[in-house]
Amino acid sequence: MEINEKQIEIYFNKLWPLMRSITGEGVRETHKILSELMPLKTIEIPSGTNVIDWTVPKEWNVNEAYIIDPNGEKILDVSKNNLHLLNYSIPFKGVVSKAELEKHLYSLPDMPNAIPYITSYYKERWGFCIEHNKKKKLIEGNYNVCIDTELKNGSLTYSECILKGKRNKEVLISTYTCHPSLANNELSGPISVAFLYNLLKEMPDRELTYRFVIIPETIGSIIYLKKNRKKLVKNVIAGFVITCIGDKANYMYKRTREKNTISNRVVEYYFNKISNNQTLILDMNFDEYKNSNINQSQPRIINFFPDNGSDERQYNAPGNNLPIGSLMRSMYGTYPEYHTSLDNKEFISFKKIHEAIYTLYDICKIIDNNIIVENTIKYCEPQLGKRDLYPSLGASKDTNKYVNAIMWLLNLADGNNDLLSIAERSHIEFETIYNAAKDCLKKKIIKKR
Amino acid sequence: MEINEKQIEIYFNKLWPLMRSITGEGVRETHKILSELMPLKTIEIPSGTNVIDWTVPKEWNVNEAYIIDPNGEKILDVSKNNLHLLNYSIPFKGVVSKAELEKHLYSLPDMPNAIPYITSYYKERWGFCIEHNKKKKLIEGNYNVCIDTELKNGSLTYSECILKGKRNKEVLISTYTCHPSLANNELSGPISVAFLYNLLKEMPDRELTYRFVIIPETIGSIIYLKKNRKKLVKNVIAGFVITCIGDKANYMYKRTREKNTISNRVVEYYFNKISNNQTLILDMNFDEYKNSNINQSQPRIINFFPDNGSDERQYNAPGNNLPIGSLMRSMYGTYPEYHTSLDNKEFISFKKIHEAIYTLYDICKIIDNNIIVENTIKYCEPQLGKRDLYPSLGASKDTNKYVNAIMWLLNLADGNNDLLSIAERSHIEFETIYNAAKDCLKKKIIKKR
Amino acid sequence: MEINEKQIEIYFNKLWPLMRSITGEGVRETHKILSELMPLKTIEIPSGTNVIDWTVPKEWNVNEAYIIDPNGEKILDVSKNNLHLLNYSIPFKGVVSKAELEKHLYSLPDMPNAIPYITSYYKERWGFCIEHNKKKKLIEGNYNVCIDTELKNGSLTYSECILKGKRNKEVLISTYTCHPSLANNELSGPISVAFLYNLLKEMPDRELTYRFVIIPETIGSIIYLKKNRKKLVKNVIAGFVITCIGDKANYMYKRTREKNTISNRVVEYYFNKISNNQTLILDMNFDEYKNSNINQSQPRIINFFPDNGSDERQYNAPGNNLPIGSLMRSMYGTYPEYHTSLDNKEFISFKKIHEAIYTLYDICKIIDNNIIVENTIKYCEPQLGKRDLYPSLGASKDTNKYVNAIMWLLNLADGNNDLLSIAERSHIEFETIYNAAKDCLKKKIIKKR
Repeated sequence: MEINEKQIEIYFNKLWPLMRSITGEGVRETHKILSELMPLKTIEIPSGTNVIDWTVPKEWNVNEAYIIDPNGEKILDVSKNNLHLLNYSIPFKGVVSKAELEKHLYSLPDMPNAIPYITSYYKERWGFCIEHNKKKKLIEGNYNVCIDTELKNGSLTYSECILKGKRNKEVLISTYTCHPSLANNELSGPISVAFLYNLLKEMPDRELTYRFVIIPETIGSIIYLKKNRKKLVKNVIAGFVITCIGDKANYMYKRTREKNTISNRVVEYYFNKISNNQTLILDMNFDEYKNSNINQSQPRIINFFPDNGSDERQYNAPGNNLPIGSLMRSMYGTYPEYHTSLDNKEFISFKKIHEAIYTLYDICKIIDNNIIVENTIKYCEPQLGKRDLYPSLGASKDTNKYVNAIMWLLNLADGNNDLLSIAERSHIEFETIYNAAKDCLKKKIIKKR
Repeated sequence: MEINEKQIEIYFNKLWPLMRSITGEGVRETHKILSELMPLKTIEIPSGTNVIDWTVPKEWNVNEAYIIDPNGEKILDVSKNNLHLLNYSIPFKGVVSKAELEKHLYSLPDMPNAIPYITSYYKERWGFCIEHNKKKKLIEGNYNVCIDTELKNGSLTYSECILKGKRNKEVLISTYTCHPSLANNELSGPISVAFLYNLLKEMPDRELTYRFVIIPETIGSIIYLKKNRKKLVKNVIAGFVITCIGDKANYMYKRTREKNTISNRVVEYYFNKISNNQTLILDMNFDEYKNSNINQSQPRIINFFPDNGSDERQYNAPGNNLPIGSLMRSMYGTYPEYHTSLDNKEFISFKKIHEAIYTLYDICKIIDNNIIVENTIKYCEPQLGKRDLYPSLGASKDTNKYVNAIMWLLNLADGNNDLLSIAERSHIEFETIYNAAKDCLKKKIIKKR
Repeated sequence: MEINEKQIEIYFNKLWPLMRSITGEGVRETHKILSELMPLKTIEIPSGTNVIDWTVPKEWNVNEAYIIDPNGEKILDVSKNNLHLLNYSIPFKGVVSKAELEKHLYSLPDMPNAIPYITSYYKERWGFCIEHNKKKKLIEGNYNVCIDTELKNGSLTYSECILKGKRNKEVLISTYTCHPSLANNELSGPISVAFLYNLLKEMPDRELTYRFVIIPETIGSIIYLKKNRKKLVKNVIAGFVITCIGDKANYMYKRTREKNTISNRVVEYYFNKISNNQTLILDMNFDEYKNSNINQSQPRIINFFPDNGSDERQYNAPGNNLPIGSLMRSMYGTYPEYHTSLDNKEFISFKKIHEAIYTLYDICKIIDNNIIVENTIKYCEPQLGKRDLYPSLGASKDTNKYVNAIMWLLNLADGNNDLLSIAERSHIEFETIYNAAKDCLKKKIIKKR
């Protein structure tokens, strides 16, 4: 499948207006649309289900919500921008004074033209989110408030899709669908993942299984882990939470909790390759990064932190400790547009999403090709000349990069090194090492482990 | 107990004039005075007792010692400064020529106004220490020498004091009382330790046991180890030899022989905290440090060295390998006043001793609080909201340092990390992590290991 | 034996004109000459013998080889320079056109006055190597070609020599004798090794066994390993391939495949000692080094690479993984004269070979002296004073480097540290530590492990 920016934009436009939350019809519709791109298996978990320390909340749906001012003018309407409604707001209908209304209004004084995105999943409240400038202009008098929402015993929706490989070992790709109209910190994730599926499906010689998990944040991954933990712990060798991948910054990678995972090693290798070893390795926690002024035009890698972020927090919780990092561009919580109405179509770039899909594919390809091989001939170099892998004339002062790769591979093929560690140690490109391995496998001087 | 500089000075003045050595009445009197501050248990070890490779020497006491010059003038009198007598000098009475006398005089040509401090514990000699300028002015003629000292089968005196905690695990604090009137390289040590006892006694929620050891250097720690080794090896988790802690330099810490001990980790953490990460980590041996020109206004940490120093050499001997470092300000052997009459009351500062006592207390407090905890809820984050540990409104772009600490703690509470390593990895202050742990213990989402 | 440059030159002159290859009479004569310097045991392996993945080739001998031009002039004669003949050229006699002849001529357009050194061991070809300038001047017409060589079922020649020590543990020294008249990249190796034998033979207190291996490259070490692998794996604790050791550059050391071997540690220690810590540690592969512009006047250390080099590739093959590095000056493949007629007597320096022999000896001496010792008195410092190892007067502010060495030694003599690691950790010279160990052994306060 050839992916183009236009297709990406089409799906963005379809998904943009839906009222998503951690439950509800907006989520179901989102998964239905994503199903056009990949064969999702959608699962419903009833409200009230206990999940370790958590409980699946009531299902939330929205019919309409607006405010009419003392002049009879509809000054705010959720149908215009679904961020206007406090996410998970309980229903409310009534006439309230300006003072009373203001207790239920959320705005951002330092970004007066942005609507904030606010949620109250686990405490019952009603409220609206509003531009601060608009809030300041509210006139005295009584306001007619209508929040026609429903909180009922329904279910929570999530989906998975498993692309079977020759091996049971898995790469897990996780993203979320619980934010309403937010572009970078929501839609860039599921859209990239859905298209990535189509590239991975057609990867030549694909070996690994790819597991796609599309969930509401936190409660979704906790449910998913509860149901699949043993399998995941057994099979997942690498994985990524995909979020905030559509803006104009270079890539940011948040490492897994364990330092030396395949996810961490492959991303660091890949970032160094695309940046000519200019990757910034940041020994910072989230707050330090947020308050820093790090150049966003270079790839960056930051250590795992649990005090902010997305579902990698659950995947990396003690007892799970899955090797799942997170790939982004601008990091959540650190760019001004984050969780406001300014995280919109203008903020992102379909070109950058397109590029990110191929980056994800390239990273998965290295993971897929990163086999461990072992010599069949031990105790000396195999005679490469008789297998046409070495020049018969002992002459050239120039070295042949391909022959070099074969010799590095054979020297390190003791069963302790994966191809990536051979590439790292030899300073030869992974792809060259992989091609050497393919030829040596054909010639039967190495075997897979 | 509130400690003030005046109290420190009072005890300094009491202890200053006593003629201390590795044995004798001056030591007994010293321990009696220190007993006013802490409940010392004093032990006497008879002369001639074999201790591994060593033998407890005869007990040494001094009645009087002086020199009368050819003019009948008393030109040197030990009652004026007890450094004047070669420590452990055998008795001698007689008339000697200037030339003969000079064979028994020790002076410092490059510090002509200082009396050196010299010892001869294990070889019998008589002698005096004298200012070089004074020595140069000696006139020709016969000198009347009187050294009324006594070397008898007596005993060697040391003391210990154990402050029991809830746990058997111990912090060992060691200092020495074998130097006569020397201020930094002697009295700053036992005085700080005695006052430290009073602070530790009142530490809230104290868990650990604190063992105070007050001994003559080298032979004292060898005796102490011989009698207590098994217990110490089993229980001591950290410890410090306290010496030269009263001058005006910033702190110097000499590491334990093993690299990764709690003593080393806590001191490095603490020094970085008080210096805003300006601690100098010195990969030097003693001689290299002595000949360097390291800035003394920053905290410094140097690797363990066995070729100079105090009782940490015995505690860290092979077979013991106890995790005991040494806390100082200016390091022994590296400041000009060291082991001379210039290491006196003017050289030290009671303010700096006062500060050091509280520093020692703070370091012990981190060691005491450095527990290992383990999640009671595994496989996901506990739901903090329902326990009032997390805001119910998913809104704020600002992070809450206390909530962050809780989340770091819970993510790393897998039983492999002590609180200090959680502080190190999260870049969050130890105290905040400790407070988070206390709350999480109360809420029963973690338990102590 | 005192070695002087003149002796080195005499042997160089004897060995220079011989027609060496991986087999043949030139090799036998070479080994016979080297036998004058060391008691070589020479072994013949029949052509056709299978050796793991390889087969011993036919034996190659040369009677004469020349070209006569259309004017009847002998324009090329192997008796003038044995590089002129393609090494392992099959016999050929006949008259060929200029065009046909040129297909069999090898030259270097960018070094037009140099004869290249070319081999074709495993593919049958005839050919000559010629200066490019000479080749360009060939006139039209028929050329009379005579290559009177012989390829017969004979044998491959190699030698070994074992200098027995008190212990079975071995240092392996390997060099090769398969290149014809090449000075740095051949004769500097076997000549240095032969003289080194004579120094090692007379090393005082020598403990280790030294194994000298003189072989044709690659096929030779494969044969040697096939016959001796178990013994080598059991006993070899360090070793070096000696090659290109005669030019004017400073030393280059190629590390063993395993990082932390005695070979690597000793060479790094020694290079730092001779260069006052100016050793360049190069994290480069062969190509990166070749294309770099590294200063050749400082000692350099490069990581092991398998894609170029000599017999260390076989010694370090998986399954063998012997701790054998390689000591050179200018590295093979990276200097312009390499594998051409310019690698001749002018290119090398007998003074540098002389120096290298003593350097090799010094390195072997550290390996030999690098014992592991253990305290006989544990749990405290032994009382050094009563053994006359410590001053009886506790006075001197100056430290005594020798006493320091003793105290470091005793503190680290827990059986886990060899003397080199004690030197590394203490920053005291290895030799001082070794002398301290000898005295402490005499005093029985340590014992060998």
